[in-house]
Amino acid sequence: MTIFIVLAGILGLLFAFYLSQSVLKEDMGNEKMKEISIAIQQGATAFLNRQYKTLIPIALIIFLLLGFFTEHGFASAIAFGVGALFSTLAGYLGMYIATRANARTTQAAQGSLKKALGIAFKGGSVMGMGVVGLGLLGVALLYMLIAKQNPALIDSIDSFAFGASLIALFARVGGGIFTKAADVGADLVGKVEAGIPEDDPRNPAVIADNVGDNVGDVAGMGADLFESYAATSIAAMLLGSYLLGATGVILPLLLGAAGILASIIGTFFIYSGKESNPQSGLNRSLYVSFLLTAIAAYFLTKYVLPDHQLEYFIVVLAGLTANILIGKVTEYFTSHAYRPVKKIAESSQTGAATNVIYGFSVGLESTAVPIMIVIGTVTVAYLVPGGGTYGFYGIALAAMGMLSMAGTIVGIDAYGPIADNAGGIAEMAGLDPSVRKVTDQLDSVGNTTAAIAKGFAIGSAAITAIALFSAFAEKAHLVSLDVLHPSIMLGVFFGAMIPFLFCAYAMRAVGTAAHDMIDEVRRQFREIPGLLEGKAKADYKRCVDISTKAAIKRMIKPGLLAPLSIVVVGFGVALFNPITSLHMIGGMLVGATASGVLLALTMANAGGAWDNAKKYVETGAFGGKGSESHKAAVVGDTIGDPFKDTAGPSLNAVIKVMGTISLIIAPFIAAMV
Amino acid sequence: MTIFIVLAGILGLLFAFYLSQSVLKEDMGNEKMKEISIAIQQGATAFLNRQYKTLIPIALIIFLLLGFFTEHGFASAIAFGVGALFSTLAGYLGMYIATRANARTTQAAQGSLKKALGIAFKGGSVMGMGVVGLGLLGVALLYMLIAKQNPALIDSIDSFAFGASLIALFARVGGGIFTKAADVGADLVGKVEAGIPEDDPRNPAVIADNVGDNVGDVAGMGADLFESYAATSIAAMLLGSYLLGATGVILPLLLGAAGILASIIGTFFIYSGKESNPQSGLNRSLYVSFLLTAIAAYFLTKYVLPDHQLEYFIVVLAGLTANILIGKVTEYFTSHAYRPVKKIAESSQTGAATNVIYGFSVGLESTAVPIMIVIGTVTVAYLVPGGGTYGFYGIALAAMGMLSMAGTIVGIDAYGPIADNAGGIAEMAGLDPSVRKVTDQLDSVGNTTAAIAKGFAIGSAAITAIALFSAFAEKAHLVSLDVLHPSIMLGVFFGAMIPFLFCAYAMRAVGTAAHDMIDEVRRQFREIPGLLEGKAKADYKRCVDISTKAAIKRMIKPGLLAPLSIVVVGFGVALFNPITSLHMIGGMLVGATASGVLLALTMANAGGAWDNAKKYVETGAFGGKGSESHKAAVVGDTIGDPFKDTAGPSLNAVIKVMGTISLIIAPFIAAMV
Repeated sequence: MTIFIVLAGILGLLFAFYLSQSVLKEDMGNEKMKEISIAIQQGATAFLNRQYKTLIPIALIIFLLLGFFTEHGFASAIAFGVGALFSTLAGYLGMYIATRANARTTQAAQGSLKKALGIAFKGGSVMGMGVVGLGLLGVALLYMLIAKQNPALIDSIDSFAFGASLIALFARVGGGIFTKAADVGADLVGKVEAGIPEDDPRNPAVIADNVGDNVGDVAGMGADLFESYAATSIAAMLLGSYLLGATGVILPLLLGAAGILASIIGTFFIYSGKESNPQSGLNRSLYVSFLLTAIAAYFLTKYVLPDHQLEYFIVVLAGLTANILIGKVTEYFTSHAYRPVKKIAESSQTGAATNVIYGFSVGLESTAVPIMIVIGTVTVAYLVPGGGTYGFYGIALAAMGMLSMAGTIVGIDAYGPIADNAGGIAEMAGLDPSVRKVTDQLDSVGNTTAAIAKGFAIGSAAITAIALFSAFAEKAHLVSLDVLHPSIMLGVFFGAMIPFLFCAYAMRAVGTAAHDMIDEVRRQFREIPGLLEGKAKADYKRCVDISTKAAIKRMIKPGLLAPLSIVVVGFGVALFNPITSLHMIGGMLVGATASGVLLALTMANAGGAWDNAKKYVETGAFGGKGSESHKAAVVGDTIGDPFKDTAGPSLNAVIKVMGTISLIIAPFIAAMV
Repeated sequence: MTIFIVLAGILGLLFAFYLSQSVLKEDMGNEKMKEISIAIQQGATAFLNRQYKTLIPIALIIFLLLGFFTEHGFASAIAFGVGALFSTLAGYLGMYIATRANARTTQAAQGSLKKALGIAFKGGSVMGMGVVGLGLLGVALLYMLIAKQNPALIDSIDSFAFGASLIALFARVGGGIFTKAADVGADLVGKVEAGIPEDDPRNPAVIADNVGDNVGDVAGMGADLFESYAATSIAAMLLGSYLLGATGVILPLLLGAAGILASIIGTFFIYSGKESNPQSGLNRSLYVSFLLTAIAAYFLTKYVLPDHQLEYFIVVLAGLTANILIGKVTEYFTSHAYRPVKKIAESSQTGAATNVIYGFSVGLESTAVPIMIVIGTVTVAYLVPGGGTYGFYGIALAAMGMLSMAGTIVGIDAYGPIADNAGGIAEMAGLDPSVRKVTDQLDSVGNTTAAIAKGFAIGSAAITAIALFSAFAEKAHLVSLDVLHPSIMLGVFFGAMIPFLFCAYAMRAVGTAAHDMIDEVRRQFREIPGLLEGKAKADYKRCVDISTKAAIKRMIKPGLLAPLSIVVVGFGVALFNPITSLHMIGGMLVGATASGVLLALTMANAGGAWDNAKKYVETGAFGGKGSESHKAAVVGDTIGDPFKDTAGPSLNAVIKVMGTISLIIAPFIAAMV
């Protein structure tokens, strides 16, 4: 069966390769379009290279620490390295193809919506399949090469998840700072001050803005979801091995394999000759892969498990269903088809302040139902198999059920930035407005799918974090974690504070970097004669440089905060009392997960809602484009940028990295008891 | 000793009476000033009357439920009623004198700063002394009349805290909505659109704005701090009675009595002939009462306690010190003498969006150190007396240590709105600008003291909540609350979500009410001929009505959310499994406290920082008044209004009401086990 799993992983990667070939053979359009697309490619590649280069020393130190000081020595270190490498690869792959699919989508949009949709979707699916293919392959290979040879080494594979989560965190933060510094800078000077449209080639920050979509929304998202996939598989494997031995380890991987096949089949359902609305194609693909995974899960649980077959099938189904439900709720709060976004748009009439107050309240409100979905899913997952150790394995399997759909969801998410870039290229290359109209249609769907994917990423991170927490308790040999004891209560307080502080740093980084960007754009408008009249060319490279440098410099502090807080508190307290230390770490994980998930939902959904409220005003509501309402809505949208694309999504990585690093240090501290 | 405690409470009230007489004998100024002051009084009184009238049915239902269904029957019901009544009284008293001290302060400001400071400070101290006097007297009388007669009834006094916290919650929410709907409405149309200065009599919402200061910042604050005082005393008495019997019950009350005496003495240190800076007088008063309380605590612990005397003295000292430290941190993050506020002002140069992004990040960041102070205080309070039951009593005594300074801190806090109102009256009555200059000087100090008091209110609420949580565990006979069990973990998640949802409702209420206010102000400018030229009079009453109706209508949903969530989850789950229900309630209290304290700190400090960033720009920095930076800073300030004066401070009441209602229902559910 391990062979089948490895083959499914390889199949995922082969399908990604096939999709990328099918994208790359398309026409890139005229010289102007090529030139723009290549500038975006170069900017994105240069940034990712610098970003990953900056992380090498950090990764190397951890590699050596794991190699020399952990129980399993270089088995752990190698697992860590492979995790870090694969996470990097997942992001890179997504960026590589997204920066090449953009101009091709623009070119196709001159012909037909359907063809453009196909290219953008294929481009996105490359990352979707890459993420799950690499995830499954990595975990399965490590299992075969390390744990299957020597079952005592099973614990070492958690270093794989740690490596992946560390890279994911920096990819999310760095990419998030880059993209939003560029976006905020470009919007505030371009749209608000100079009064030129979005993606106008006269705006010096326009290339940086498009690069940002690829390094933030694509590469960052890819690394993050790869990590969720890896961490969930590993938590499920660890809990499964404690409970059922090899069978418990193999089932989550088989679910992953089934998910890959279902996602591949799902991609073929996107095309339909009839409808003009791209949303229905994406939805169909989603539902097909949901249904196929559910069917596969029925047979897998039935034939692989020794007992509790139906119970665990219900559990996986609950995880799958949670995806759909969270997606629906997210859509309700962030789409302008519904009341919340319309009300935000309405409150723009009385200015930016009321727009922001209302929008922030929508973000806060949007936490309630997803939290209840998570609570419901975990309750089902724990109680249906009978609670106790069976229940914890159930929680991990529910998380695996959610993530088995990652291929499809990441695919339709990465589609968004490609469509967005395609629109930018149409504008910058001065193509006929009809082309922009097609890409706008693609892009507006992308906003909804991005919101759904964010809900998915946060929801699955929450359940993954709970599964990691259970795995931590097992590894730390904790039989109870009594919150009546102040050390645990205070651990919860301290842990809950970390996401707040993290968001402060991440938002601050965007604010400061955007400030530099604004200064530069203003300078170019002032000092380059003829720029605003379209007679001179802007110095795009310099803006890309500013975003790059700012992101590299400012990702370190927020990136190190979460893992170091666990290490410092863990070892610091352990010097006095190792049991208290394990208690505090446990408390911190609970607190950080609770506040992290809530903040992430608030920020992601408020940001999405502000964005679509602005778009709703642009459709002509409450005065339409150029009105005072529109100006107010633009302020809300700009504030929402770092909410939804920097701080919010990075929090997934924050809570998971805290979980994975706790798994690594738990045995050390437990040994000091 | 009980007599001594009762006498101290009475002394506090007598001193409040003396102070109020000394304020009331001052001159109210000319006819115009009297007219304005009376309009503010009438608006505030009418609102409080309607607010409390609305709450009577809710309180009556709870009274009957407690009377007929609880173990101690009408002993509990009466305790509840007295708690609700005293909380109401505390708010009423503060409002009564504040609305009468305002014009008198203005009048005195025509003579000397010193005299004006004296009146405003005395006016504030009336509420300070009223809060602690009523608090101590209420708790001590109930103890004498109920628990001392029949020690088995000691449990019934927690209904006093529940009554107080329920009123406090509605007072905070209702007052917060009133004041910010008026403030936001007045600012957005008056300052931003019509370009008239703050407190200009041409602005129809100007009286409502001044009424708001009194019903929100004074009456709401008074009810809230009364409640903290009551809940902390009661948690300490309950934990003390379990541990040490009557001695354990009496010590917290004696600390409160000592605090009252120290506060009274402290008030005499405010006056100094020399300095021109009112801040130093307020600081001196604060430090004197800190020092005297500390000395008293040393002797009280030494002579009252049978053992652990020095240990518990250190604990009380830790609580007292936490006040000063949290105050300093709050000042750092919200005063424009320091970097954070200056940087917010600086980022206003690039527009409202960057101002808001930076300001929000300051709010998020400001959570870290206060949380660590709370963690440090609780750690000392728990470990120094030796942990276990001794430790929990220590936590309650540390909280009592913090709150023993409430008289002084509430006093210097309520001083702020009086100074603010005095400035408004100077402006509206068209007095010489030199008067406004004096009141502005008083007001700017008020901003700092308000921020310190908010930090104090949140910090003490955090420790009170922990003490209530311990008392809940005792009452529910929980021997452990193992967060490894999903029911508790999910309880934490659910509880952590409540403050988010609460803030959503509270902010929404302000946004919607402000929207109505803006429409009304715009209408009056449009329809009343000559209003903007100052030739016609605005219809102030109508604006007061709008705020009143909006606050009454919209306080219900957020006000009921927190207590009902505990009742519904508690009894709902108990139907299936009472143990799981108690676990979930325990988890909810932990989650709500953690996320509530963090959100409250974020919102209160971000709001304070935005406010002072605007004031800093108004001093001439980054373009000064009327510049684009100023406009951006005004947007941030306006967004900060509901953050710092509606949602943020109400969260204290939210987490405490969840704690007190859990105390009430714990025995029921425990009986179902």
